Amino acid sequence: MSELRRPVKQMDIKAKMTVDELVKEMGGAAFGAGRLAEALDVYEAMLRDDTTKFFGLAGAMVPAGMRKIIMGLIEDGYIDVLVTTGANLVHDLIEVWGGHHYRGTSVADDIELHRQQINRIFDVFLPEGHFSTFEKKLLDVFAAIDAKDMSIRELLTQIGRRVGADSIIGAAARKNVPIFCPAIADSAIGLQAWLHTQTHKLNVDTFKDMHEFMDICYNANRTGALFVGGGVPKNFILQSMIVTPKGGFDYAIQLTIDRPETGGLSGATLDEAKSWGKVGEEARAVTVYADATITLPILVATVRERLERK
Amino acid sequence: MSELRRPVKQMDIKAKMTVDELVKEMGGAAFGAGRLAEALDVYEAMLRDDTTKFFGLAGAMVPAGMRKIIMGLIEDGYIDVLVTTGANLVHDLIEVWGGHHYRGTSVADDIELHRQQINRIFDVFLPEGHFSTFEKKLLDVFAAIDAKDMSIRELLTQIGRRVGADSIIGAAARKNVPIFCPAIADSAIGLQAWLHTQTHKLNVDTFKDMHEFMDICYNANRTGALFVGGGVPKNFILQSMIVTPKGGFDYAIQLTIDRPETGGLSGATLDEAKSWGKVGEEARAVTVYADATITLPILVATVRERLERK
Amino acid sequence: MSELRRPVKQMDIKAKMTVDELVKEMGGAAFGAGRLAEALDVYEAMLRDDTTKFFGLAGAMVPAGMRKIIMGLIEDGYIDVLVTTGANLVHDLIEVWGGHHYRGTSVADDIELHRQQINRIFDVFLPEGHFSTFEKKLLDVFAAIDAKDMSIRELLTQIGRRVGADSIIGAAARKNVPIFCPAIADSAIGLQAWLHTQTHKLNVDTFKDMHEFMDICYNANRTGALFVGGGVPKNFILQSMIVTPKGGFDYAIQLTIDRPETGGLSGATLDEAKSWGKVGEEARAVTVYADATITLPILVATVRERLERK
Amino acid sequence: MSELRRPVKQMDIKAKMTVDELVKEMGGAAFGAGRLAEALDVYEAMLRDDTTKFFGLAGAMVPAGMRKIIMGLIEDGYIDVLVTTGANLVHDLIEVWGGHHYRGTSVADDIELHRQQINRIFDVFLPEGHFSTFEKKLLDVFAAIDAKDMSIRELLTQIGRRVGADSIIGAAARKNVPIFCPAIADSAIGLQAWLHTQTHKLNVDTFKDMHEFMDICYNANRTGALFVGGGVPKNFILQSMIVTPKGGFDYAIQLTIDRPETGGLSGATLDEAKSWGKVGEEARAVTVYADATITLPILVATVRERLERK
Repeated sequence: MSELRRPVKQMDIKAKMTVDELVKEMGGAAFGAGRLAEALDVYEAMLRDDTTKFFGLAGAMVPAGMRKIIMGLIEDGYIDVLVTTGANLVHDLIEVWGGHHYRGTSVADDIELHRQQINRIFDVFLPEGHFSTFEKKLLDVFAAIDAKDMSIRELLTQIGRRVGADSIIGAAARKNVPIFCPAIADSAIGLQAWLHTQTHKLNVDTFKDMHEFMDICYNANRTGALFVGGGVPKNFILQSMIVTPKGGFDYAIQLTIDRPETGGLSGATLDEAKSWGKVGEEARAVTVYADATITLPILVATVRERLERK
Repeated sequence: MSELRRPVKQMDIKAKMTVDELVKEMGGAAFGAGRLAEALDVYEAMLRDDTTKFFGLAGAMVPAGMRKIIMGLIEDGYIDVLVTTGANLVHDLIEVWGGHHYRGTSVADDIELHRQQINRIFDVFLPEGHFSTFEKKLLDVFAAIDAKDMSIRELLTQIGRRVGADSIIGAAARKNVPIFCPAIADSAIGLQAWLHTQTHKLNVDTFKDMHEFMDICYNANRTGALFVGGGVPKNFILQSMIVTPKGGFDYAIQLTIDRPETGGLSGATLDEAKSWGKVGEEARAVTVYADATITLPILVATVRERLERK
Repeated sequence: MSELRRPVKQMDIKAKMTVDELVKEMGGAAFGAGRLAEALDVYEAMLRDDTTKFFGLAGAMVPAGMRKIIMGLIEDGYIDVLVTTGANLVHDLIEVWGGHHYRGTSVADDIELHRQQINRIFDVFLPEGHFSTFEKKLLDVFAAIDAKDMSIRELLTQIGRRVGADSIIGAAARKNVPIFCPAIADSAIGLQAWLHTQTHKLNVDTFKDMHEFMDICYNANRTGALFVGGGVPKNFILQSMIVTPKGGFDYAIQLTIDRPETGGLSGATLDEAKSWGKVGEEARAVTVYADATITLPILVATVRERLERK
Repeated sequence: MSELRRPVKQMDIKAKMTVDELVKEMGGAAFGAGRLAEALDVYEAMLRDDTTKFFGLAGAMVPAGMRKIIMGLIEDGYIDVLVTTGANLVHDLIEVWGGHHYRGTSVADDIELHRQQINRIFDVFLPEGHFSTFEKKLLDVFAAIDAKDMSIRELLTQIGRRVGADSIIGAAARKNVPIFCPAIADSAIGLQAWLHTQTHKLNVDTFKDMHEFMDICYNANRTGALFVGGGVPKNFILQSMIVTPKGGFDYAIQLTIDRPETGGLSGATLDEAKSWGKVGEEARAVTVYADATITLPILVATVRERLERK
């Protein structure tokens, strides 16, 4: 019975533990705790290895309070390529342009909120007025951008150069971390582009990003990906590896609550990704099924500690 | 206690029931059954009313066997605007070009599958060879398309005109039903566009669709949306209504297993959408939390019966 | 590539289909639809075979409107052994004693409901007053029961003989279908037993049922189980097979939305049950991940049709 | 817009944070992170207040590695009343009698495992041989117990006195913390009781516990409950408060992934519990939707730190 080598070690939990000590205890446990500890091991190995580091960011992570974590990872070189949704960029811009998200309640009278011009994102409230500021500022940026043909990534870099460094988009521009956002039209940025292009020219090519993105994949030595949620960011990152000669990702971690049995890509297992060649046969891959607003901070706090320890 | 007006009617289930009779019994029940019956009422009202009918199609619905249902809805005028993912279009093209999806198993040796060149989508198997056909055919179509500036919708119409009517994309082209697919780069279509544009010109503008889409929204009298899953299709459809003067959707139905508490748009409730003005204050809106491969066929079978009846 | 034998057949959905025709179409599809069709095949085989038929009923299925379905299965010999929760029996008794459950709303002011003495079960409302009737009636039944040592099953048979046949508990008593309810103290029946035993004697032995239940398992030729939800009913049925010499269940179906990754028995897969010997190595076993208020009626309508057909 | 008082504070995550510092950062965030921080506030208030502290323990928490955490809470007076499942007690006894649970894999060949006599619980492996030891030891304990009428709680105390203090059941016996387990027959303890009572007498009354449990509820000044998962432990704890004159719980926390929309009690919201009077109108109540093997250790580490700080 060769499988019976690692007894579950009952967790020993005390006051004043560091997050790293906590996750070490989780490493002896099973289910989500065991997986979170394993995710840390994979993440540490991925960041120490000579990998090109992809980060897929879906979900409303900026409204939830994860913005500074992403910024920090960019600034410290832990993200080489960011793929995200339009929504996360919009909410990032709202904050860098002076707006805030607010703690509200998940059980709310949404019709009353609508009358008060407050938009709800589960238990986060966002005043509609913040979008007015966002719109004005973004139209100014659009006006300042040279309207020659560009890719979505180039557009985002242009925007990033015109906003403060205390933002995901600004930090990425300063650190030359490309941001890809294939579904950018599906966001308030898309809505402003609609307004802007009624009177101005702005040519952003849908497929132009593919060349830059595929070049990154081709030129990578080894590759790793951390997925927060699924959606377009997850699929866009994974699909690229199918067509490269080097094979799938060497490291892959997903933090999600999505489940596989209805067949969507968001909930697909990383094993399933191996059948496609998106994730390598020998890859270290782990999924932690839990709210990413809990698991991402833990993962980042601990990996930072381990990398500093060196 | 004015709330206590409608006693739960215990379902009476017999042999030889029609689907319509089944859903009628569900109408007296609660939880998912009650919601499915309510969704039918909303869908019937939406299709009978003078509405512009949006359909948001996410998830791997074509591999699952829902393709002909969507085609039928297009052909019979029950979909005015389709918003979907690149994946569903890719799998639609694979089938119209002679390929098949196969029933496999969800517990599989994915590394062995990879070696046999079989891609897995939960319990569906797809031979890698089908992608070779897909790629060749799609490059032929790209070559035939005039490379002038176009929108994603126009590109899809161009493709649709060059494939058989026994497909979603072909049927839509014939019936002048626009297909929007904001994240098209995030699919095998995007990958082929990358190959094609290494040697050819193809200008597909990211934001050009916004004008056509917003015009549809502005010109609509009343509006309804059926969402299968969430993702980009759901958000793209909903966000448009924020900026129209007429207010949010009058009818909205979502068939999903996604849940609200991690804040993603896929799982957001339709009540939450009311706070944003995406769904109208007076709208008839219902979410059925269950696998859409079960609920969509039921909804379509019953709404067809009711609409034929009078 | 021997796996590629069964192409997904795109579902053909029309008006006026019977439920059986619908599920036949699902049989060519994948994900939840394919599994539901497979569950029907297993259920039909299980009912046609010479099996002892167990039914595990968890969740609030009586408030939801599934009561008459269960009653019908008992009356027609499709359930040999029922294992359920105290709650389902309480709600069954509430209805047979003249009470009703009411359709309410899932978004409600629960403090206001409390003040109006209305109890909420998701979107079902239940007036507190119905419990007063329930309590009075049940105390009368307790008073009439001979207080000699008995098992929980015997207590439930005693109750069943004193209520109308238009109830689960009454129908089971008339058809000699034993009802097991290991956690009966965990229900309003338990609360009334507490009141009753303050002044009366009532000896119900916790473990006495084990003998009758294990005898049923030992004497069974072949065995099948349908699980609606998980909980105590699922575990109690499955654990018995571990200690019988005949090995695990020959047929097993579960209708649930519970998921495996947090390790609870409710969400455990039927494959996992094979490692324990609860389900046989050669068993036909299938899980349908969807709301049972939708899948159970479909399963029952179709299996009834197929069984009548020949 | 009085709701907009608390801006989301973007989390600041660094190396070497303590768990308490981490949760403090979560306190500025939303979704699961915000709720976990709120749960800590409620738990701290509940433990500092003059409350009777109930703990509902469902799910396979002992195999997962949470056993020592529960033991510690009992030893330090943070649990006054434990309500749990038979399974957790069985796995606790397996460990105190020298057995181990082992880290395995969730994707496994369950038929092969069965042949190797290894039982699987998601990603935990348990050798069947451990049950042989368990059975022998438990039969010895049963033989030593005086067979007079007793409650389930009394039986568990009798067992607890005969096992080491390094177990949940042993620690509870030493600290006079009652353990209630209404569904005890639904476990390997029930199976052994079946063997034992074939030749010996053992009278354990199903309803006898109600008197002791209700006395605790009646005598409580203020009350709080922490629920890990749902199931019988959650319902049994909550239902008691309906019949006490003092009204519902003053504090309630649940750590679960179960969801409300299929109507089961496990996933029911704590708001729903207010309509029944199970949770008080003014109660501080919060649900954290995430794997409890991750959230429970965090909650315990931080509450211990705060209480020590005093």
